[in-house]
Amino acid sequence: MPEGPSFDPQEALPHLLAFIREQTFATGRSRLVVGLSGGLDSATAAYLGVRALGSENLTAFFLPYATNNPQCREDAMQVIERLGIEHQEVDITPIVDAYFERCPEAGHKRRGNFMVRIRMAILYDQSEAYQALVLGTGNRTESLLGYTTLWGDMACAFTPLGGLYKTQVRQLAAHLGVPERIIAKPPSADLWVGQTDEGEMGLSYEEVDRLLHCVMDLGYSDQDLVREGFDPGFVDEVKRRVEAASFKRRMPPYPRIT
Amino acid sequence: MPEGPSFDPQEALPHLLAFIREQTFATGRSRLVVGLSGGLDSATAAYLGVRALGSENLTAFFLPYATNNPQCREDAMQVIERLGIEHQEVDITPIVDAYFERCPEAGHKRRGNFMVRIRMAILYDQSEAYQALVLGTGNRTESLLGYTTLWGDMACAFTPLGGLYKTQVRQLAAHLGVPERIIAKPPSADLWVGQTDEGEMGLSYEEVDRLLHCVMDLGYSDQDLVREGFDPGFVDEVKRRVEAASFKRRMPPYPRIT
Repeated sequence: MPEGPSFDPQEALPHLLAFIREQTFATGRSRLVVGLSGGLDSATAAYLGVRALGSENLTAFFLPYATNNPQCREDAMQVIERLGIEHQEVDITPIVDAYFERCPEAGHKRRGNFMVRIRMAILYDQSEAYQALVLGTGNRTESLLGYTTLWGDMACAFTPLGGLYKTQVRQLAAHLGVPERIIAKPPSADLWVGQTDEGEMGLSYEEVDRLLHCVMDLGYSDQDLVREGFDPGFVDEVKRRVEAASFKRRMPPYPRIT
Repeated sequence: MPEGPSFDPQEALPHLLAFIREQTFATGRSRLVVGLSGGLDSATAAYLGVRALGSENLTAFFLPYATNNPQCREDAMQVIERLGIEHQEVDITPIVDAYFERCPEAGHKRRGNFMVRIRMAILYDQSEAYQALVLGTGNRTESLLGYTTLWGDMACAFTPLGGLYKTQVRQLAAHLGVPERIIAKPPSADLWVGQTDEGEMGLSYEEVDRLLHCVMDLGYSDQDLVREGFDPGFVDEVKRRVEAASFKRRMPPYPRIT
């Protein structure tokens, strides 16, 4: 089995920080807002934001829904305390429930996607209040697999982790000093009780990242992949997901009329 | 003064309908949802949707906020009746107010952008309920000028009017039989009382479309434009807007890490 994507956080860090500064200053703004979920990606993005612009220029928003795991608040608050950043909490429950009281039949996926889009709307509104930009928290693995809510968590001014696979984000987080508990816990969008990314997708990030690296960065053919020990069914499944999610990685198409 | 972009609605129509069918069927779905505001673009998109897929495959959503102009409901309902399509109305006031009660200081732009994003979240949720796609209503003029809410009204599965300037949408609307009152009234996002597009931008669509056509389609230089009778200050202003809005026409950037 081939190795996962190699990555040197120490070498990558200056590039990531320069990217954040360039993208921010190009707009004439100097502040960021970020939604902290208590998870790995948003914590890592917040650490990068503070390293790039200073703790006085990042405001964190914790935007819980009633069913969220209470552990997530503790984890988000630990990031806020360690970084010494301003934060606000907005309970999205009344906003979300004001809509779904007319659709009681909606299941957990519809509710979860709606929550993510409400969080986007709040972060964008708050970015205007703070004359700031919305710092993205998306990574390359979830973008390729389409494990995002379109116009929800992928919506941001820029996403410094967008070129990194999930396993690379974990390495970067360790280098930046993100709390160990956040690095170690199973990734979860926490959109319903008990949800985990790997459980929902039926895939492990370690395995997926190894495969995506071989396909996207090394250009392995299907034959190469099987020779390297990847299960053909797994290869098909991941490629199918990447293809099916392409609509989440581009702007809406329109017909060219000449 | 050069003419505006020439356009033959009769010739364009089959291409627009084929685009809608291709985009829809490629996803395995056969239904659309659309947000009807009572304005020209959404009415025209709805007429196209019905022509492409049949009236039984389009559901219209009227999503008013308390301050919306009551004339807009009448105009939207006229479209719904003439097309014979299913519709639902969701008052977004309780959802929007549930958020802004904690930010009473927010002005009308923040409130307006939030409303547009709430409408997006509702349309996407309903598209799941109906196993449908969100039909976009954006045109080329507003996309180039950035007269849209990012991740709001620009968010859709595809936008059949995206290649047409506003003045071309008006010609298409007349060809399709969109109610005359909708074609004739001053365009407005109706995000606050008395808002009109042209008043807010300080630009007329006729003039802007003539200029954009010369710049984007004919490749006129600044010298050409002045020779053709465009005011240099107007040219600078429009070009500045198009450039400043480029972030609304691309996905969020991320750094490439090798």
